[in-house]
Amino acid sequence: MTLFCYIYEKKVDYTFIKKHIQELIEISDAEIEEFVVPFFKKINLRKHQYLIQEGQNITFAYLVEEGLLKQSFWDTDGKEYIIQFAGPNWWIADMGSYYKDIPAKWSVDCLKDVTLWGIPFKEVDILCDRLPKMERFFRMKGNLGYLSLQHRILSLLNENAKDRFENFVKKYPDLYSQLSKQHIASYLGLSRETLSRL
Amino acid sequence: MTLFCYIYEKKVDYTFIKKHIQELIEISDAEIEEFVVPFFKKINLRKHQYLIQEGQNITFAYLVEEGLLKQSFWDTDGKEYIIQFAGPNWWIADMGSYYKDIPAKWSVDCLKDVTLWGIPFKEVDILCDRLPKMERFFRMKGNLGYLSLQHRILSLLNENAKDRFENFVKKYPDLYSQLSKQHIASYLGLSRETLSRL
Repeated sequence: MTLFCYIYEKKVDYTFIKKHIQELIEISDAEIEEFVVPFFKKINLRKHQYLIQEGQNITFAYLVEEGLLKQSFWDTDGKEYIIQFAGPNWWIADMGSYYKDIPAKWSVDCLKDVTLWGIPFKEVDILCDRLPKMERFFRMKGNLGYLSLQHRILSLLNENAKDRFENFVKKYPDLYSQLSKQHIASYLGLSRETLSRL
Repeated sequence: MTLFCYIYEKKVDYTFIKKHIQELIEISDAEIEEFVVPFFKKINLRKHQYLIQEGQNITFAYLVEEGLLKQSFWDTDGKEYIIQFAGPNWWIADMGSYYKDIPAKWSVDCLKDVTLWGIPFKEVDILCDRLPKMERFFRMKGNLGYLSLQHRILSLLNENAKDRFENFVKKYPDLYSQLSKQHIASYLGLSRETLSRL
């Protein structure tokens, strides 16, 4: 069933947001319509466009509905290191820029055409004040994200190139089928040549 | 000023907890005494004791008041990989064990005598229901922890052994002075020999 509401007389389909939030907490259509959706802005970007460029002050967090993005650090030699991929149901932001009030050091660009929902960081607090169960949602999301990064750190510490690659393919078959070897190598901390040999 | 309250007729000094929470949110003595402290249990462990051993089902999260711990994964060859150190004001837990309801895969042991505050994971939810500002506190803590892990991942991806070691010393001078070369090497993903050459 597709769910709509009207924000400033504009019809908004919030089916995706509702399903995404309901994966962690119970929330009614009325709560979504009244409290949640009005804080979000739907954004479409084409493949190769940038969502975040280094040097910008970042004030939004983004939830991906469709498409695929990557968050990267580029060193002074022009080498790219991929911190995170983000596909459907993943959140992407530059928390360093927001929490420390400094320009973004990492860029985010689109590997496919993308549909996102953006919410200003500051308004996350207002949303949570109005509907405290959303603070529970964001806390759980944060904890699960933390856990996932711990596993990635352990993989970088203790897995050799072959295991790292094979476990990536096993864990993220959808990502694997959409990514270039170069991007997978930049994410796994391997050279393109090492990956080609595997 | 030292702050006390009585939990089940036992006098509890909550100066540390109050200061720790006030770093992120505003909270009164009355709120700390009535809502927060009763959920926590103070724990003392000696150097070399284990807080968490692999195979246990973990139901508590811990805040360190004094001392130093490490969270590690041991591979089948008996090699140790250090996922996290935790000194004063750091939280340590096994969220994987709690969220996925599986036995802990990672152990936590004491590098010094340790004083901790433990709270059952499930009671974090109850505490947050009763005092919603604590959910804000835990959400912010989680986000800052996430950010710190992102930086560690980037360091593992793009820094050579020398930079990784020097940045660790610069970032955590207190940790550096308390740790053995072996532990630093296990945390940085370097061999003991490589570290000794630096």
